[in-house]
Amino acid sequence: MISKGSRKKILSVAVMTTLVFGSFATSSLEVEAKSYKSNQGKVKNVIFLIGDGMGPAYTTAYRSFKDNKDPYVEETAFDKHLVGMQQTYSWDPEESITDSSAAATSLSSGIKTYNGAVAVDMEKNEVKTVLEEAKDRGKSTGLVSTSQVNHATPASFGAHDESRNNYNDIADDYFDEKIDGQHKVDVILGGGTSYFEREDRNLAEEFEDAGFSYVHTKEEMLEDDNEQILGLFAPVGLDKAIDRPEEQPTLEEMTDTALSKLSENKDGFFLMVEGSQIDWAGHDNDIVGAMSEMEEFEKAYQRAIEFAKKDKHTLVITTADHSTGGLTMGIDGEYKWDPTPLKAAKRTPDYMAAEISEGEDVEDVLEEYIDLDLTEEEIDSVEDAAEEEDTTEIDNAIERIFDLRSGTGWTTGGHDGVDVNVYAYGPQSDQFIGLHDNHQVGLKVIDILKNVRSVKPHK
Amino acid sequence: MISKGSRKKILSVAVMTTLVFGSFATSSLEVEAKSYKSNQGKVKNVIFLIGDGMGPAYTTAYRSFKDNKDPYVEETAFDKHLVGMQQTYSWDPEESITDSSAAATSLSSGIKTYNGAVAVDMEKNEVKTVLEEAKDRGKSTGLVSTSQVNHATPASFGAHDESRNNYNDIADDYFDEKIDGQHKVDVILGGGTSYFEREDRNLAEEFEDAGFSYVHTKEEMLEDDNEQILGLFAPVGLDKAIDRPEEQPTLEEMTDTALSKLSENKDGFFLMVEGSQIDWAGHDNDIVGAMSEMEEFEKAYQRAIEFAKKDKHTLVITTADHSTGGLTMGIDGEYKWDPTPLKAAKRTPDYMAAEISEGEDVEDVLEEYIDLDLTEEEIDSVEDAAEEEDTTEIDNAIERIFDLRSGTGWTTGGHDGVDVNVYAYGPQSDQFIGLHDNHQVGLKVIDILKNVRSVKPHK
Repeated sequence: MISKGSRKKILSVAVMTTLVFGSFATSSLEVEAKSYKSNQGKVKNVIFLIGDGMGPAYTTAYRSFKDNKDPYVEETAFDKHLVGMQQTYSWDPEESITDSSAAATSLSSGIKTYNGAVAVDMEKNEVKTVLEEAKDRGKSTGLVSTSQVNHATPASFGAHDESRNNYNDIADDYFDEKIDGQHKVDVILGGGTSYFEREDRNLAEEFEDAGFSYVHTKEEMLEDDNEQILGLFAPVGLDKAIDRPEEQPTLEEMTDTALSKLSENKDGFFLMVEGSQIDWAGHDNDIVGAMSEMEEFEKAYQRAIEFAKKDKHTLVITTADHSTGGLTMGIDGEYKWDPTPLKAAKRTPDYMAAEISEGEDVEDVLEEYIDLDLTEEEIDSVEDAAEEEDTTEIDNAIERIFDLRSGTGWTTGGHDGVDVNVYAYGPQSDQFIGLHDNHQVGLKVIDILKNVRSVKPHK
Repeated sequence: MISKGSRKKILSVAVMTTLVFGSFATSSLEVEAKSYKSNQGKVKNVIFLIGDGMGPAYTTAYRSFKDNKDPYVEETAFDKHLVGMQQTYSWDPEESITDSSAAATSLSSGIKTYNGAVAVDMEKNEVKTVLEEAKDRGKSTGLVSTSQVNHATPASFGAHDESRNNYNDIADDYFDEKIDGQHKVDVILGGGTSYFEREDRNLAEEFEDAGFSYVHTKEEMLEDDNEQILGLFAPVGLDKAIDRPEEQPTLEEMTDTALSKLSENKDGFFLMVEGSQIDWAGHDNDIVGAMSEMEEFEKAYQRAIEFAKKDKHTLVITTADHSTGGLTMGIDGEYKWDPTPLKAAKRTPDYMAAEISEGEDVEDVLEEYIDLDLTEEEIDSVEDAAEEEDTTEIDNAIERIFDLRSGTGWTTGGHDGVDVNVYAYGPQSDQFIGLHDNHQVGLKVIDILKNVRSVKPHK
């Protein structure tokens, strides 16, 4: 509903809008009410959330996973802001399905490129990213992920490299590449100590010398009151959401921290937040992990939306870089996808497999971490894998229990090519209605950050 | 672009709209320009197109199938009008994934129901369909499908039954259930002679006696100039698009015929057009069939859009009832989905398998219908299946060649649960922006047909 208050603020323009487009305000979808209400506003801040690997089967399955059998299936926090979809293919000469860095480069820089490219084009020329555009305009900037912070997706916003595999060079870029003499990323939170405290170079120390806080635990992060921070909570990626120890922060906590620091800048900010390990669960074909990573990502999403609701000048744009694993809901002709068994898992199959590999008893581990009466056949399948002393096989056997009980299907350990969802909230969110190519999404975000509305098709 | 002409027509309201929402007119997406340009208009006609089984992997794969390697992937006719997605789950007590009749009942009648229900609710009470609402308002009505016309999807618009399997009763409903003394469906085109010319009742003859034309071939259909018509071109479903004999019409031709007859009514019309066999290809896990059925459906879609563009008072709403087969693009860790081999098929694997089963030589059949140099291993796989004299195994072996060459994955012979796309064009199309539950889509179409804009969430 357009409230009387807001109607007053935008005066006769709003009244006219209500006459012509009044229906938007009374639709069942928050996207319509909210976006059309606020689309006159200029954008001061952009929060770009990326659910890595989060194809349409992930968002659908997660809605069902959360559902309370009401009997209507409730919307997730994302659903209210669905505005369209985007194409994810890359221009790789060998591979038509994108990797994370090519897709993130499209989203960060508005171009198509080859798989492995980190904010460089087909000729390996560096391209300006939306994060750099923001810094150029005096805004603060942040990168938050549950992977190492120099992994493909955050890297494609804050660094440039011909290969995503040059992890050290990417980490160096975060420190060395300056804009107007300033380090270009003010808030860096995630995993990756091993790339920042190296034998050849101690980047962490250099960041500290330059005035950044450097923290290693959730507690240190929450207590820190510096505006610039490097927080690295694990040697590489963080532990999986459902397996994570207390001292590592959640994505929600890192997002909150980033928002409170970045919003100190009166000129605004750009923040990229990645739910990195939705993709990793997808590669592993682990539906338990996928759902718990989705849950963590949704919580971070909610914090971004809450911030934007209060702020009123923040665009929240959310999408996936691609879908992973060929996840589907439904196998073997059964008309059923049942999330109940997935809720019974207290740890990922990976976690359980590691314990079994380390010599723990199979039945004890399964009983401790899975709140289900497993059949003898199911237990035997894990016992058999344990006898082979192959952690991957143990992991697969446990995953198979969840797949068969829930009706979850997978077709690949890599990415798949299906279009992914686009969610938008806040001023200018209407620009993302419909189907876009991924580089068009990137271009629009850049244009919005420049306070220019896109006026023609981008190709 | 809002042209000067149309700007004049809607006077100062349009000018104000351009001021406030001017960006829509200059967006890259036709959906925005077109729908916001025409959203002031009342709806006289509704064309409801349903791609049965057409999940997001089908629309993505089909875009790639059609692409000319430009190097950007071109949009399909559908893509321009993507406005959102919808949830497809049913209220079946046993099955959370919907069947076609429960989903079609949600779309036709605005309610949730059990699998197998044909326009009846959970208590098996008949519910009014959008087709009946249209007829009630003096509009003409039509049902067009490539399945038998009394199959689940068309049935859920034009009949009522506690089970989709009561094919004869459903066919009877089309004749027996009258609204204001009139037969409720004026144009019925598709397959199904075996249900209309029965030993116990000759419905076809009854239709003819009531003033309907009754035709059996494309030629008869195209020559007919009666406003009411029953056209049945096969005993059950039509032949698959790519295998279809000349005397059977295409979905495009049936859609054209329906539009020309129905548009004679100055009070408007409701027309449902189903691309029925996208789903059948999905059940069969046949990617060649799926792509050729998508192609046929797109052509019918284009005719509907062309009609609506000229008419200006026609809403075209297009979606799927559900996704089928757990189709994905990408298998075995390869980052590639390659449609090239699919374009080399001149017939479906089903068609080839039938010829081989009837005694034709395996190599001859494969050479005649597949324009590829098959490997010895591929030919052997079909030879091996042929030796078992099992048509299904031969079919599967041929399908497997296309799956492996293209990188196509499947997880079920049934339906899957992923959300499906929603496309809308014409006046009131903005109402479908965002995520809806399938019954909400149905309710909105009914409200639009009544010329009522939905004013609150429907649950």
